[in-house]
Amino acid sequence: MSDTGILVLTTGGTIDKAYFDALSEYRIVDSSIRQLLEQARVAVPFRVEELMRKDSLEMTAADRALIAARALAAQERRVVVTHGTDTMTETARVLAAEVPGKTIVLTGALTPARFAETDAAFNLGMAFAAAQTCPPGVWIAMSGQLFDGLKVRKDREAGRFVAVAG
Amino acid sequence: MSDTGILVLTTGGTIDKAYFDALSEYRIVDSSIRQLLEQARVAVPFRVEELMRKDSLEMTAADRALIAARALAAQERRVVVTHGTDTMTETARVLAAEVPGKTIVLTGALTPARFAETDAAFNLGMAFAAAQTCPPGVWIAMSGQLFDGLKVRKDREAGRFVAVAG
Amino acid sequence: MSDTGILVLTTGGTIDKAYFDALSEYRIVDSSIRQLLEQARVAVPFRVEELMRKDSLEMTAADRALIAARALAAQERRVVVTHGTDTMTETARVLAAEVPGKTIVLTGALTPARFAETDAAFNLGMAFAAAQTCPPGVWIAMSGQLFDGLKVRKDREAGRFVAVAG
Amino acid sequence: MSDTGILVLTTGGTIDKAYFDALSEYRIVDSSIRQLLEQARVAVPFRVEELMRKDSLEMTAADRALIAARALAAQERRVVVTHGTDTMTETARVLAAEVPGKTIVLTGALTPARFAETDAAFNLGMAFAAAQTCPPGVWIAMSGQLFDGLKVRKDREAGRFVAVAG
Repeated sequence: MSDTGILVLTTGGTIDKAYFDALSEYRIVDSSIRQLLEQARVAVPFRVEELMRKDSLEMTAADRALIAARALAAQERRVVVTHGTDTMTETARVLAAEVPGKTIVLTGALTPARFAETDAAFNLGMAFAAAQTCPPGVWIAMSGQLFDGLKVRKDREAGRFVAVAG
Repeated sequence: MSDTGILVLTTGGTIDKAYFDALSEYRIVDSSIRQLLEQARVAVPFRVEELMRKDSLEMTAADRALIAARALAAQERRVVVTHGTDTMTETARVLAAEVPGKTIVLTGALTPARFAETDAAFNLGMAFAAAQTCPPGVWIAMSGQLFDGLKVRKDREAGRFVAVAG
Repeated sequence: MSDTGILVLTTGGTIDKAYFDALSEYRIVDSSIRQLLEQARVAVPFRVEELMRKDSLEMTAADRALIAARALAAQERRVVVTHGTDTMTETARVLAAEVPGKTIVLTGALTPARFAETDAAFNLGMAFAAAQTCPPGVWIAMSGQLFDGLKVRKDREAGRFVAVAG
Repeated sequence: MSDTGILVLTTGGTIDKAYFDALSEYRIVDSSIRQLLEQARVAVPFRVEELMRKDSLEMTAADRALIAARALAAQERRVVVTHGTDTMTETARVLAAEVPGKTIVLTGALTPARFAETDAAFNLGMAFAAAQTCPPGVWIAMSGQLFDGLKVRKDREAGRFVAVAG
C-alpha cells in the first residue's frame, strides 16, 4: 500500500448544516470541508470525497458499509471521516472491524462550520494531525481530545465526548 | 512528573494581530487563543499563559530562554506554544536543546485569528492533537502538516512550511 | 417629545437563532444585536431593550400590542425593531395604527447573525440609517431595500421582500 | 436622468485591506464589496465598478476627479462610494462641487471587511439605505450615523466621525 496523502470522506452531520429561511430549518448542504482546508493552507496532499449528506441519526448499516468500503478501497493509508456526532462511535466500530491497517480519524462539529463561532476548523485540524501521527486504528477527534474510537461515547447533555472503558 | 493536561504558552505573532485604524497598521494584541479554545469546546484540561506579545522577528535570545524556562518549570508534560512563523524554527531549536522529556508543539498562523478566513483554529487544533499523540520532542504544526521541529523551514515566498533534511 | 437617540427593541426571529446540538435544532437565544452595534462602532446614542425571544410565526396579538406600547411610551422618537421575517408586515400594520409621529424601522435576517455569512449586520445598518433619515411612519429594511411598511410582502420562496400596491 | 438602481464605486481603503504574511503587512486587495452585497441578499438593482485600490492618504486630485467624473457620467442617480476614511471628507467636498443632482453616499470601515468582527457590512447597509432615502447631495455613513458630507470630520484618535459646523 503506497502512502499518497490523506483521504477525506465527508458524510454530513452538523458540521455541514446550513439554515434555510424558507423552511425555517437547517439542512445538510454541500460540504464546506474543502473550503476549511483551503483556508487552513493545507500543503500536505489530500483528496476530498463527498460520500453522503446525512444526519448521523439517519445513517443506516448500508451507509456505514459504504464508508468502510471506500476507506478500504482507497490507496491512501490515512483517512479522515467527517460525520454527525450522534452515531459517530457506531461508525467507528464498523470501521475498526472492517478496515484493518489504516489510520482512520472521525471528526465533526457541535456547531455548524458556517457559524462564525464553530468548533469545525479546530476539530478538522485535530483530525489531520492525528491522521499523520497516530498508528493504524480508528480514532475520534472531538472536544479538544484524541480518543480511541472504541473507548469513547458522546455525552449529549454535556455536549462533549468522554472516554469510557473499552 | 505528573501529567496535568496541556500548557499553552502564547508569545504573539501574526495569529494575534489586530488592525488599528488610528495607526493604519497591525499590532499584536491580547491573545485570542483562549477564545479559540472555548469555541472549540475543548474539554481536556489546559492552562493558558500569555508570555509575551512579539512579532517573532523581534524575538531575542532572552525571550527564547524565557519560553524554555517556563516550559521546563511547568508541571504539564505537554506544551503548545503559539508563535510568529518567521523564527518559529529558531525557537524550536532552543526548546529542543533545553527542555528534555516533554512534548512541545509550536504553531501559529499566516492570517490573524481575527480574520473571518484564517488558519488559526485549524493550526491550534493540529497542535492540541499532536501534543496528545506525539512522543517527547519538539514539533511544528503548520500548513496542515506535523513536522519534526528540527527538520523544517518556512518558505516565506510560497507561504508554507516545508520539510528539510535534519 | 425630546429626541434622545435610537431605541432598539429586539423581539427574536431568525436573526437571533443559534444551533443546539443536544436538541439537534435551532433556538432563539440572547440577542446579538448589542454585539453587532458594538462591532459597527456605533457612536450615535442608542438603547437596546430585549422585549421577547419569539419566532415571528408564534407571535400573538398581545405580543404586538406590547411592542407598540413600548415604542409609544419610549422617549425616543426613532425606533428600530428586530423581528422574525414571516410576520414582520403584520407587526408593521399594528405599529402604523397605534404609534403615530415616530419613525419606526423593522428589520431582521434570513440567515442568523451567528453565521459567518449573514445579512444581519447589513440589515441593521440599513435600519439605523433609515431611522435617522426617514420621516415618521413605519418602514421595513430588508433585501437591500427600504420599503413602506404597509406596501411590502415577504416572498418566502424567493427569499426576499417585494413591494406591493398599498 | 433615468433611475436605474444604485451604482457602487469602490476606491480601496481599510474596508478592502488584507494581511500578507510574506510581507508582514496589509495591502488593499480585490474588493469584497460584491461579496458583502451578495451575503446581504440585496435584491434592489445595483452595479459595482472597481475604480481604484488606494489608501485614502495616497489619493490625488486626479483620483478624486476620476471618482467625480464616473459618478457624473453614470446613468444611476444614486451612488455609493467605498473609500478610505482618512480623506473621505475631502472627496466628499469634490463630489459636492462637481456632481449636482445625485444622491451620493460615502462609506468605508475602521476594520477590514475580512475580519470576523468588522463595521464593513453595517456601514455598507447604512449607505445603501441612505442612497435610497436621502435627497440629492453628498452624505457620509460612518460610526452608526448619517452625516452631511460637508459637515463632518474624522476624529482619528477617538476612532469615529463627528459632526462639525458647516
